[in-house]
Amino acid sequence: MEQPDSTTRIAILGAGLIGTAWAALFRHHGFDVRIWDPAPEALDSAEARMTIPLAQLAEIASDAGRSGTLTLCKSLEDAVTGAALVQENAPESIPVKHVLYAQVEPHLATDTILASSSSALTWSDLAPALQDPARLITAHPFNPPHLVPLVEVYGTDPARIHRAEAIYRAAGRVPVRLKKDATGHIANRLASALWREAVFMVQDGIADVEAIDAALVNGPGLRWSVLGAHMAYHLGGGAGGMAGYLAHLGPSQERRWSALGQPSLTPDVQAALVAGTTAAANGRSITELEAARDKALIAALCARNDAPNV
Amino acid sequence: MEQPDSTTRIAILGAGLIGTAWAALFRHHGFDVRIWDPAPEALDSAEARMTIPLAQLAEIASDAGRSGTLTLCKSLEDAVTGAALVQENAPESIPVKHVLYAQVEPHLATDTILASSSSALTWSDLAPALQDPARLITAHPFNPPHLVPLVEVYGTDPARIHRAEAIYRAAGRVPVRLKKDATGHIANRLASALWREAVFMVQDGIADVEAIDAALVNGPGLRWSVLGAHMAYHLGGGAGGMAGYLAHLGPSQERRWSALGQPSLTPDVQAALVAGTTAAANGRSITELEAARDKALIAALCARNDAPNV
Repeated sequence: MEQPDSTTRIAILGAGLIGTAWAALFRHHGFDVRIWDPAPEALDSAEARMTIPLAQLAEIASDAGRSGTLTLCKSLEDAVTGAALVQENAPESIPVKHVLYAQVEPHLATDTILASSSSALTWSDLAPALQDPARLITAHPFNPPHLVPLVEVYGTDPARIHRAEAIYRAAGRVPVRLKKDATGHIANRLASALWREAVFMVQDGIADVEAIDAALVNGPGLRWSVLGAHMAYHLGGGAGGMAGYLAHLGPSQERRWSALGQPSLTPDVQAALVAGTTAAANGRSITELEAARDKALIAALCARNDAPNV
Repeated sequence: MEQPDSTTRIAILGAGLIGTAWAALFRHHGFDVRIWDPAPEALDSAEARMTIPLAQLAEIASDAGRSGTLTLCKSLEDAVTGAALVQENAPESIPVKHVLYAQVEPHLATDTILASSSSALTWSDLAPALQDPARLITAHPFNPPHLVPLVEVYGTDPARIHRAEAIYRAAGRVPVRLKKDATGHIANRLASALWREAVFMVQDGIADVEAIDAALVNGPGLRWSVLGAHMAYHLGGGAGGMAGYLAHLGPSQERRWSALGQPSLTPDVQAALVAGTTAAANGRSITELEAARDKALIAALCARNDAPNV
C-alpha cells in the first residue's frame, strides 16, 4: 500500500473519550475521518470534545497538522463505507462488541481493517463474531491516545497488520507488534506487574503512595521514557552488556524476584491507596490532574523531537 | 539547619562512575567537594572524568551552576574532616564497607551524616559497622546520578534524614523517604517487578525484546515520567478517582496479577535477551548508547522546567 493520505478514510466507532481522541489524532494528521456513536448526544458533542485534543496536537512541534475532514455519521453503514480502517471503541463487553461486529461486517470492503481499541479483551475474545476473522486486529492505544504514541497491534493477517501499522505511523503513532495474543497486551502487563509491587510496598509499610509515585516519576519512570528496561540492564552490564549483566547479576535478579510481594486489595490496603492518592492530588480535581498530565506529556513529547529514545 | 551553601563540605568516598557523578553534581551546585579513592589512578583521573557530567549539568537550564570547589584527597581523614555529609560509593560488599566505615568513623564530627549509595545492600546490612549507627543513612541514587533526580533515603535519625534531604534538594535532587528498610529500596523493586514480566513475555513468546522496550518507552514509561502509577489509576477511575477504580476494576487487577508470569533465566531465555538487546542496540556501542540516553534524559529534564510532574 502506498503512504496513507487525505483520501484514506478512517471510521471511528464510539465517540467517548478514546473515540474522540482517535478522531482528533487522525484529523490532525490529515485523514478523512468519519465518526459514529449510537447515542445522539455523544455524536452531537463529539466535535466540541475534540477542541482540546486538537489544540494539544498543534502544540507538539513535530506534528505539522494537515487538517483532515470530520464527518458525524448517524448510521453505522454511512461511517464505515469506504473506510480503509475502522477503529472500534465500544464498551469493554464481549456481547456488545460481537453484536456491533455482526452489524458492521456486511458494510466492510474486502480489505478493510477492523481495529479494536480494547484494553481488557483479546483478539481471540472478539474474532469469533466475524465471518472473516482475518479482518480483525487488536490496536490498543495508551491513554491519552492522541498524546501517548504507543499502539499495541495483534492480528493474524500480515497484510492487514502491515497496512494498519503504516496508517498508525502516518498518524504519528508507534505501533508495536505482539507475536501472540495475550491478556493485557504488553504495556498493561508491565503496568500491572509494577503496580502489584507498588501496592505490596504500601501494604508492607515500606513506603507510602506519594513516596512510591515520586520515586517512579523521578527515577525509573523518567529513565524508561527514554530507555527500555532491557536496554537499561544492557547498559548496567558495563562493557559486557546484557550478557555481562546476566552472568554477574542474573542470580541476584532471580533472588530479588522471589522477594517481591503478593499483595491483596483488602479494605485496609484500599483505604491506604485512596488516602495516599488523595494526599498526592493535594486538592486538585481529576480534570486539573489530567490537564497537568497532558501539559507535562506535551513537554516530554516536544523534548523527543530534540533527542529520540534509545 | 540553614540552607546548605558553598561552605557546606561534601566528602565523596570512591571515584568510580557513581562517585564522580555525585562529585560533579555537588560541585555544579556550589558545594565544597572533597573526593577520595584508595586507588591513586582513580583519584588522578577523577577530575577529567567529571568533564562530561559537568557539561551535561550546565545544559539543564534550571540549574544555574554555582561552581563549587573540588579537592582530590590522598587520605581518608583529609577527605571527611569537616564534612557535613559523606557520600560513600565503595564496592557492593558488606566486609569492604564495614572496614571502610570503621576507618572513617573516628574522623567524623558528631553530627556528620554518613550516606551510602548502596543499591544491593540495606541500612541493616551496613549499620552494625558503626559505633553510632544513627550516623548512617541509605541514600541511593538512580543511574546516572547527576541526571536522574531520585535519591532514596532511609535512616533512623530524623534530624540527620532531614539535613541530608535539604542537602540533596540543594543539589537539585528529589529525595524520597522509605518508612522501612527494604532490599532494593523502592525503585529497584519496581524495576525488578516490571522486568520480571518483561522477561516472562520473552520466554512465553508474547513479544520480543525490542517490542517490549518500544512499548515501554512509548507507552507506560513515557507516562510514568510525568504521572505516578497510583495517580494513573486515580485518573483511570474517572470522576470516582482511586476509590472508583478499585470498586470497579480492583477484582480484574487481582485476576491480572495472578496471570502474570514467573520466568526463569534459563540459558534459552538468556540467549533470547542477549540476542534481542543486541538487535535493539543496532551496532551502537555501550558508550554510544549511554550518550544517547544522556542526551534524551537532558531533553526530558529541560522539558520538566516547562511542565512539572503530576
